Parts: sequence; C-alpha cells; structure tokens
Amino acid sequence: MKISIERGTLLKAVAQAQSVVERRNTIPILANVLIEAEGDTASFRATDLDIEVVDKAPAQVERAGATTVAATTLHEIVRKLPDGALVTLTADSAAGRLTVEAGRSNFSLATLPKEDFPVMASSEYQSNFSANAAVLRRLFDKSKFAISTEETRYYLNGVYMHVAEADGLKVLRCVATDGHRLARIDAELPAGAEDMPGVIVPRKTVGELRKLLDDDEQAIAVSVSETKVRFATPTITLTSKVIDGTFPDYSRVIPQNNTRRLEVDAADFAKAVDRVATVSSERSRAVKLQLDEDRLVLSVNAPDSGAAEEELAVAYADERLEIGFNAKYLLEIASQVDRENAVFLFNSSGDPTLMREGNDLSAVYVVMPMRV
Amino acid sequence: MKISIERGTLLKAVAQAQSVVERRNTIPILANVLIEAEGDTASFRATDLDIEVVDKAPAQVERAGATTVAATTLHEIVRKLPDGALVTLTADSAAGRLTVEAGRSNFSLATLPKEDFPVMASSEYQSNFSANAAVLRRLFDKSKFAISTEETRYYLNGVYMHVAEADGLKVLRCVATDGHRLARIDAELPAGAEDMPGVIVPRKTVGELRKLLDDDEQAIAVSVSETKVRFATPTITLTSKVIDGTFPDYSRVIPQNNTRRLEVDAADFAKAVDRVATVSSERSRAVKLQLDEDRLVLSVNAPDSGAAEEELAVAYADERLEIGFNAKYLLEIASQVDRENAVFLFNSSGDPTLMREGNDLSAVYVVMPMRV
Repeated sequence: MKISIERGTLLKAVAQAQSVVERRNTIPILANVLIEAEGDTASFRATDLDIEVVDKAPAQVERAGATTVAATTLHEIVRKLPDGALVTLTADSAAGRLTVEAGRSNFSLATLPKEDFPVMASSEYQSNFSANAAVLRRLFDKSKFAISTEETRYYLNGVYMHVAEADGLKVLRCVATDGHRLARIDAELPAGAEDMPGVIVPRKTVGELRKLLDDDEQAIAVSVSETKVRFATPTITLTSKVIDGTFPDYSRVIPQNNTRRLEVDAADFAKAVDRVATVSSERSRAVKLQLDEDRLVLSVNAPDSGAAEEELAVAYADERLEIGFNAKYLLEIASQVDRENAVFLFNSSGDPTLMREGNDLSAVYVVMPMRV
Repeated sequence: MKISIERGTLLKAVAQAQSVVERRNTIPILANVLIEAEGDTASFRATDLDIEVVDKAPAQVERAGATTVAATTLHEIVRKLPDGALVTLTADSAAGRLTVEAGRSNFSLATLPKEDFPVMASSEYQSNFSANAAVLRRLFDKSKFAISTEETRYYLNGVYMHVAEADGLKVLRCVATDGHRLARIDAELPAGAEDMPGVIVPRKTVGELRKLLDDDEQAIAVSVSETKVRFATPTITLTSKVIDGTFPDYSRVIPQNNTRRLEVDAADFAKAVDRVATVSSERSRAVKLQLDEDRLVLSVNAPDSGAAEEELAVAYADERLEIGFNAKYLLEIASQVDRENAVFLFNSSGDPTLMREGNDLSAVYVVMPMRV
C-alpha cells in the first residue's frame, strides 16, 4: 500500500478512529487503525469490538493495499505535522512497517497484519431511514445527561431510542434515566422509521455519534436492528452494538397529574441554584425550594459550612409548597432549557416533579425530590 | 465588622487569598481568609504558614472589625455573583457567622475567631529595592521550568535569587536546576540590591509571585532577609519564607569551553523534536541529534513502536557529532527562546551542552546529554 493524503483530511479521519480505540487493551490489534486503500479512497477503521467507525477520505492511491498501525501514535504524528503538508503512507508488509513521510519528517511505525483486524460482521437491518443531524443532535444532547453510570443497571447505561406515540401521533423518542431523573425527548418520526425496533444506544456510542452531528443540514442514514445500530454520513460510518437488555417502562414514572405550576427564567434559576449550592456539603447538595405566590426562595442549610438563601420572582399561583432537590440534578435539567422559560409541575414534596420548556411537550424531564 | 465592596474588586482579592490556602489542612483556620476592615480599606490575608498574601481593596467600611471565613467557599460565592453587584459582608462575632449579601442572595458562613489566625511575624529585611514587574517576570519565568521536584534535594526546590558578577558587572541573577538541566538568568542589578543575601525562593512562592507581575510597568517593592522574601505592589503583599539550605555551586556545571556551535530556528527545532519524540517510549524519550555541516538530523528509535527521523537546515561548521537528549528537556529549553535563534554549544557527546538566545549571555541554559 502506498498513498498520499492531505494532512488535514488525514487528521480528521485518524482523530475519529483513535477516539474509538480504548487506551488500555489486552488485545494489541485493538489499539490499531486498519487503513485500506483502493481507487481514490483510503478508509480508516477502528473498533473496540462494540463500536466500529469507518472514515473514508480522498487519497492519491499509488499502490492499493491495507495495513494496521497504532491509532494514537499515528494521530499524534499527523497532529504535529505542519498544516497543509502532503503525507505519504507506505506499507512494507515484509518488514512489518508503515512509513509516514511529510516534508523532511520520516516515521517508521510497527504494523500488525490486516488479517488479524476484527472487522465487525455486517448484518441485516430491519429499519433504514434518514434523519437530519440537527434532529438527532437534539434527541441525544437533551437526554444523555440522565444516562445512568451504575454498571449493575446496565440497561440504563444508554439512551433508549424507539418509536412511541404522543398525542395520537407516532414519534421518534429518546429516553434516558438513572432512577433519580429522566429525560424524554420526541422528534417527528422520519419516513421509514415506523418499524424500528426500540434499542438502547450505549453511552460511548452516543459520544461518538455526537461528532457526526455538527453540520445541521447533514442527512444521517440510520439503520437499526435488534442488536445493532448504524449512523452514517457520506464519509463516516459508525456501527455499534446496542445494550442487550430491556429498558424499563418509563411511562409510569412520568407524573400525569401534577398541577402546581411554577414558571421561571431558566438561566436565572440555574444561576441561583448554583450560588446557594456553594455552601452545601459535597455529598448531599440538597437545595430547598420554598414556593409562595409568585415568589420562590431557594435555600441550603449545611451545618458545617453555613447557610444560603436566594429569592426569585416567578409565576406561581398555587398554595405554599416546600420541596428539596439535589442541586446537581436541578442544574442539569435547567441547563437543557434553551428557548423558553422553564415550567415545573409539582404535586407534593414527596412526588416526582416534571419540568419542560414552556408548553412544549416534546422535551419532558422528571426529577425525584429529596428530603430536606 | 460591616463592609460593602464591589464584586469584581472582592473577587480579585479573594482569588489571590484562596490560591495560597492549601486544600487539605489539619489546622482548620488555615483554610480561612482573615478579613480586616478599617478606614476605607478591607484587607484579605491568607497563609499556609510558609507564604502569606495580603490584598488590600477599597471598601465602604460601615463598622470596622475583623473575622475569618473559609477562603474557597467565599471565593466560589463571589465568583458566582453577577458582575457589578455590590456585596455586603457583615460579621456577627457572637453568633460566629459572616453574612454575605448581594441583591436577593444571602449567605451565612461559619467563622473562626480572628485571634486564632496565624499572622506571619514581621521581620527586618537587609535589603529593600524596587524592580519592574517585567524584569522579575523574565527572571522567574525563564528559570522556573528547571526547578527540581525531588523532595530529598529540597535546596533545589526553588529559584536561587542572588547577586552575581557577569562580565565585571554586578547583576541580579536567578538560577534553577534539577541536576539534569539548569537555567541561569541575569538582569541589571536594581539600585539598593547590592547587599541582598542570596535566597532560594520556593516553587509555590514563584507561582504566587507570577500573579503580581502581569502589568509590565508596575514597580514591585522587593525585600530580602536571610530567612524571608517579600514582593509588594501598592495593593498586594506576598511574604514567603525562603528555603533553608545552601544552593550548590552551579558555576562548575556551566561549560566554559564548548566550541561546537549550532544555530537553529528555535520554533522549528522545537516542533521537529516534538514530532520525532512521538514514537519514543514514555520512559526514556531519548532524541538523537546528528550534526554534519549545516545539517541536523533528529532521530528516535523505539524498538516497540517504531522510528522517526527529521532533517533541519541549520548553521553548523564543526566536525560531525552525535549526541542524545531527553526530548522533554530539549523542548523546555527551546521554548524559552523568544527573540532570536537558539544557539547550542557542544563539547562531546558525554558533556553538558549549553544553550542561549543568539549571543545574549543574560539567559543561559545547560542540559545534560543522555546515551542513545
């Protein structure tokens, strides 16, 4: 194999590859990126056995072929090469070396045989559809904060993407929860997605997917089977196993009859929560909300370090209520609000609270209270 | 005590204080900042028993007095208050509380009695002089990278500031070394500094001092005794114990008879070293320099991961030389060069190498070679 490729193009492809590669590997070849050159294209493939990413880039292919080389080392080298350099990659399979040349720089890297590289088996997908990057970004960005990190509840370690019904219409829905808070985000159902099986997209895949979604207008080809999910732009294909488990019935958790309505400027609210939480002890971080007519008092009482109180002018017309929350959870859901005021719907101080943006029902958050 | 103070002013004073405070303290009051208010000034004092910083800020003092409160908590609170807010601090010594008020925010923090705060004993200074911030910045910025981190050689854990002679003239000199590399930086001797005792300024003090030196033209009042050093602007006073030890005779380490002269663009050289070092194993990071007439080849050979080579056009007119260095050390000294080309003076591959900027003798670096 011998190819020449522009440094910026190469850097982008290799960056994507090395981020999938796990730092600590017991299987050496999993640290490598598989480079395959043919026609006028070079493809860069990396995997951790659960996720596979393939990035295709235009290249002058002088001699077709393939090899594998350490992803992080190649990435570091390309990153340090001067902008605009033309990089030549030459594989010498007899010597087991890949030469990287650019200007007066010359690197020789150890390779492993391409035959040993574990390429993910291709599979049948039950559902194939196209969605705008902006739509997918919203679905995952607004839900991922609620993904659980508890490994024992592995079925909560991802975002549950499935088809659901809202107001009699079918929607594409993403849900994540860790038992303390929940995010449920809906989008219009893309054509062809009707029969999509519900899948739990793992946390790492959600992170890798995010890198494909920067360009609002980009159409993303989505393919889903019971065991795998694939997201593809014209140049990058991200394939991932999904979590083999059953996502719990989240609908029971979403309160239907909360009637006490608080409307508050989300940014002001978040800043005030952040301020009063300063004095709270690291572990509990409990913030008390005390609601009276059009008046919210946030307070924290930490016997060791002190107390804090802040008043906010809000819209609230129901009877007096006191309720406590984990400050971190409140901050996280408040920071999801990007267009309108945050609307909280409470029941009692012991019941889950619902939050949404204005009257928009397509993004709904639930947070459990804590005793204060 | 009751004072009102502008949020930005307060933030600056408290930031300086909390950075001196050690995170983990067995003596609770060392986590606190001592606030003293009198006249139209509030002073903020923090110490770790080795360094003391006092920051004076203009304030409306309604009731003079003093108290101590957790520095990091106060800093966090002030940081989170809105820009331009007027902050009122009210101490209630009977209740042992400090109230922090700004707008609709209200905090009550636990205090400790001001009597328990360990104020550093004042001392006689043998030498008092004034130096420009820019001059001190250069002296410490260019030497501090060579400070040793080995605790057993505690007398190398700082910058040795002393009066020396260069070319028959007395100079203010800063030297730091860790046994592998050395930096020796000279500045014109300020008036009044002639009798200054040589002192080893500890690493942490060098870091704190840096924050006083941002404004080029600011005159810094420097006071030095055998045991202490003090740096002061009109508003901030930083006092520090110096390291109680003898700095070794560094002059023996600085080669006098190195004649093989290499001149190279410092930035190009640093980038090339950084690139070839990519393939080196984490631990050794050895880079080989191979010098021929007007030609430098940098190379690394790491059996595990690969090899790298890069050629640079340089000015070199002596006989062929091969010499190895730790890549990190080479990068660090090359990054000190800010005006001219880097000039290296070699002797043999086993001898210390000297580096300076062009023909400027006021900043000299020594680096030990390693076998490659």
